[in-house]
Amino acid sequence: MRIVTLAGGIGGARFLRGLKAAAPGAEITVIGNTGDDITLFGLRVCPDLDTVMYTLGGGIDEEQGWGRAGEHHIVKEELAAYGVEPQWFGLGDRDFATHIVRTQMLGAGYPLSAVTEALCDRWQPGVRLIPMTDDRTETHVIIEDEHGRRAVHFQEWWVRLRASVPAKGFALVGAEDAKPAPGVLEAMHEADAVILPPSNPVVSIGTILQIPGIREAVEAKPVAGVSPIIGGAPVRGMADACLSAIGVETSAQAVLELYGSRLVDGWLVAEQDAGVALDGVRVVARPLLMSDPEATAAIARAALELVK
Amino acid sequence: MRIVTLAGGIGGARFLRGLKAAAPGAEITVIGNTGDDITLFGLRVCPDLDTVMYTLGGGIDEEQGWGRAGEHHIVKEELAAYGVEPQWFGLGDRDFATHIVRTQMLGAGYPLSAVTEALCDRWQPGVRLIPMTDDRTETHVIIEDEHGRRAVHFQEWWVRLRASVPAKGFALVGAEDAKPAPGVLEAMHEADAVILPPSNPVVSIGTILQIPGIREAVEAKPVAGVSPIIGGAPVRGMADACLSAIGVETSAQAVLELYGSRLVDGWLVAEQDAGVALDGVRVVARPLLMSDPEATAAIARAALELVK
Repeated sequence: MRIVTLAGGIGGARFLRGLKAAAPGAEITVIGNTGDDITLFGLRVCPDLDTVMYTLGGGIDEEQGWGRAGEHHIVKEELAAYGVEPQWFGLGDRDFATHIVRTQMLGAGYPLSAVTEALCDRWQPGVRLIPMTDDRTETHVIIEDEHGRRAVHFQEWWVRLRASVPAKGFALVGAEDAKPAPGVLEAMHEADAVILPPSNPVVSIGTILQIPGIREAVEAKPVAGVSPIIGGAPVRGMADACLSAIGVETSAQAVLELYGSRLVDGWLVAEQDAGVALDGVRVVARPLLMSDPEATAAIARAALELVK
Repeated sequence: MRIVTLAGGIGGARFLRGLKAAAPGAEITVIGNTGDDITLFGLRVCPDLDTVMYTLGGGIDEEQGWGRAGEHHIVKEELAAYGVEPQWFGLGDRDFATHIVRTQMLGAGYPLSAVTEALCDRWQPGVRLIPMTDDRTETHVIIEDEHGRRAVHFQEWWVRLRASVPAKGFALVGAEDAKPAPGVLEAMHEADAVILPPSNPVVSIGTILQIPGIREAVEAKPVAGVSPIIGGAPVRGMADACLSAIGVETSAQAVLELYGSRLVDGWLVAEQDAGVALDGVRVVARPLLMSDPEATAAIARAALELVK
């Protein structure tokens, strides 16, 4: 079986671990969100790609959900001692090495997809991880604060401001001219099914779907989505702040309507959201908390059932 | 009093600490060797500038003589886990931060002299540290081994090969077109005296003197040199391997002749080299081992005496 998933960071990566367990023989291709990517200290950081890579490759900080296990922060301390900004983004020493290798390869002319493949040579995530695009696209957030109405990089809103300033909207800068990375559409065309993990529907999956050609390729396939909202609250992260920015309610029903029946064929919701329904979509209710590997594999199995 | 020195790495930096103690009221400008500079993992590394900066700023690993005190090597370990080369150059985590800041500033268009000044804002070395040039110049070493006659970067010969393959010569790539960094010639013109520390006469001081305009500016001033050779052996480092490559004997006499009486007016040698002499140069013999700060200050005082 060939499965394609579109994934953001922590939630997507954890779900993928379950998917690997649920479909041990499957060829899984992960299209990773790069809208959160940012250049810090001259180094190119791809938080979502790395979270997927570290999680599936056994290098993740399990408790935190992102960054490396056994991490230290000496480089960050030293950068702060030089007074270099920003100091609000938490890069650990082990993680720095990844960004150094990536930046060096990008500087040498390799596209991000080739760089990601090279990094995965070490991590052996057991899936094929491809960035949504090799082109530079960055999610910017429109906010309004004491400095007036302005757009800030997604990470500034998400990490520095902890999404505390309401977002007025999102813009994926560079999206119109971006092309799917090599392998993305090919994997999609060959896929038996597409699974949408419980990643952020706006700034992770919504972002990937904005790369010209990807939405159409997904729509052409049997697609099962896992609701990132359980009983009116995000499973984790601040999806509610993203949904309200685009005028969508924080509910399994509203996210399903946001995706729509052209995109998804099956929708997995939590038991307390059993009433969710949309014409043309098969909705199934199951326990959706990814509390441990076995529970996560069960969720993935249920999602696969929807597209069998 | 205004003093200019030309300095390499460890030996020069230690001497400078003595010079600061010997001339507490003096304005000291240090012209740093950048021929050893190298780009590693896409980051620009300036070993000699950093050794001077860390030593005078209190951040040096005292025992090793280079690199940072309390250093860790997590980034290096991780780079090795990615299989990235070279693995023979020892960069610590604290040190990495310096190279990250430098590379980011260079990438933003700042010349190396401005970057060095910014880094020194943190370290407050108590001297004005200026790279010999803002232009990229790199010392390459001509060697002959099983791969035939070839030129390798100075660091590959010095660090990876530990100078074990005889050098046939040195070439400062980019020297002809290089200009002294802003402030270098001005400092030289305003100087009351120039002191040459016991740095490597070939690949440190010799390199600085190759930047067009610097040798002439030094020759125009009262100059005292401290012999880097004591009783036929280098005080430290592998100066003998560099001297023999250019056909110069490893002796205080031969180094004095290499510099010549046009360049130096006074020459400080160790007591066992008391017989050293050259027409037009005042030679004085003193204990030359920089065994502790007081002994080092005494050496610096003796050097200053020669140009008073």
